[in-house]
Amino acid sequence: MKDSKVICVLSGGMDSTALLYDLKDRGAEIKAISFDYGQKHKKELHYASKNCGKLKVEHTIVDLSAITQLISNSALTGDIDVPEGHYEDESMKQTVVPSRNSIMAIIANAYAINIGYSDIALAVHAGDHAIYPDCREEFLIALQDLFNVNNYEKINVYAPYFDISKADILKRGLELGVDYRNTWSCYNGEEKPCGKCGTCTERTLAFVENNAQDPLYEHPEDWFKAVEYAKEQE
Amino acid sequence: MKDSKVICVLSGGMDSTALLYDLKDRGAEIKAISFDYGQKHKKELHYASKNCGKLKVEHTIVDLSAITQLISNSALTGDIDVPEGHYEDESMKQTVVPSRNSIMAIIANAYAINIGYSDIALAVHAGDHAIYPDCREEFLIALQDLFNVNNYEKINVYAPYFDISKADILKRGLELGVDYRNTWSCYNGEEKPCGKCGTCTERTLAFVENNAQDPLYEHPEDWFKAVEYAKEQE
Repeated sequence: MKDSKVICVLSGGMDSTALLYDLKDRGAEIKAISFDYGQKHKKELHYASKNCGKLKVEHTIVDLSAITQLISNSALTGDIDVPEGHYEDESMKQTVVPSRNSIMAIIANAYAINIGYSDIALAVHAGDHAIYPDCREEFLIALQDLFNVNNYEKINVYAPYFDISKADILKRGLELGVDYRNTWSCYNGEEKPCGKCGTCTERTLAFVENNAQDPLYEHPEDWFKAVEYAKEQE
Repeated sequence: MKDSKVICVLSGGMDSTALLYDLKDRGAEIKAISFDYGQKHKKELHYASKNCGKLKVEHTIVDLSAITQLISNSALTGDIDVPEGHYEDESMKQTVVPSRNSIMAIIANAYAINIGYSDIALAVHAGDHAIYPDCREEFLIALQDLFNVNNYEKINVYAPYFDISKADILKRGLELGVDYRNTWSCYNGEEKPCGKCGTCTERTLAFVENNAQDPLYEHPEDWFKAVEYAKEQE
């Protein structure tokens, strides 16, 4: 990635934040792009900005709130409650937002062409595959195939965590000095993480596997509860 | 297409308007979607709404003005003058908007999934292939491949004009009763068509081939000038 010019699709969650730090560490020239698509947990965008500020990366937040009504049939954007439990449970399909990664990746692709960048980076990882079709290998291949033909310029899809677990990405992030207080995952987007939705559960288990505590839980008893709950879901 | 549920990607130009009428004629259940991406000729959206009103088709205009700054390096969206001449001229590459058809198609794909529709319809045609990569067969194939994997639901890409000339689409539109006063093509988006940009030239030649006059030209001398100019470009 050294000397590559990369648009990092940054949610503000722990995986794409680690990717941002990782790209910086590898010497890439980076710009970051985030999306407000009406997600309940849009506070993640605040953390995305914070990390970009810290790393001096130019950050664009694209207001896609005009499409929220078109993707309302998801627990992340509509009137459906965010389900509790493990990421791989059937109920987690309610958290799929139709074509979300395609929409974000393709706007990033247009942006890359507009400013002469070569790559877009996505932080999809192995733990996403079970529930999110747009995080699987076949998706990444189809996306690259589209990127090869939809413009004169061919933009590369860079997804280095594709086959890595969330725990291993966290390990890498901790090595790179990511401050996980400045990342947000919980789909409910309230003041504190709920500790029970799919992404809270997954996040907690990743910290447990690294023998670390998630700094988003300020009170030890909240953290213990989250750990207990997450372990029950495994 | 009978009984199919189709989202028609509608620019307000002559091809997608004919497609809208065509889908109606074929008995499809239709919704239409248009995009404001900061195009200079956004008056096309007014005509899109007008035809939807006439055909009683629900019409959504998606405000993508937030991405205009990300796709500014095009004569259609940025500070570059709209080039004059024939569609197939090298200079027309300035009118390419990066990833435009991908962005529109993928948002339409998400919308289709959200409301249980089966198809998205695109009015790309044979005359577009020379200059626009995202109108070619390889693009449509890659798009369908992406649609097959990026969600649980597989949405079909319907592009019936893919191999048909603009003149033949116009012929079909005239048969279907399209009122071409209610369509807009000119990239300059001023009060009257300029008669010299690529899409004006192409439009004029399509009318000439059908032995018809473009009703957007109210004064015969304007029409004669446009015809003369277009024929010189052939």
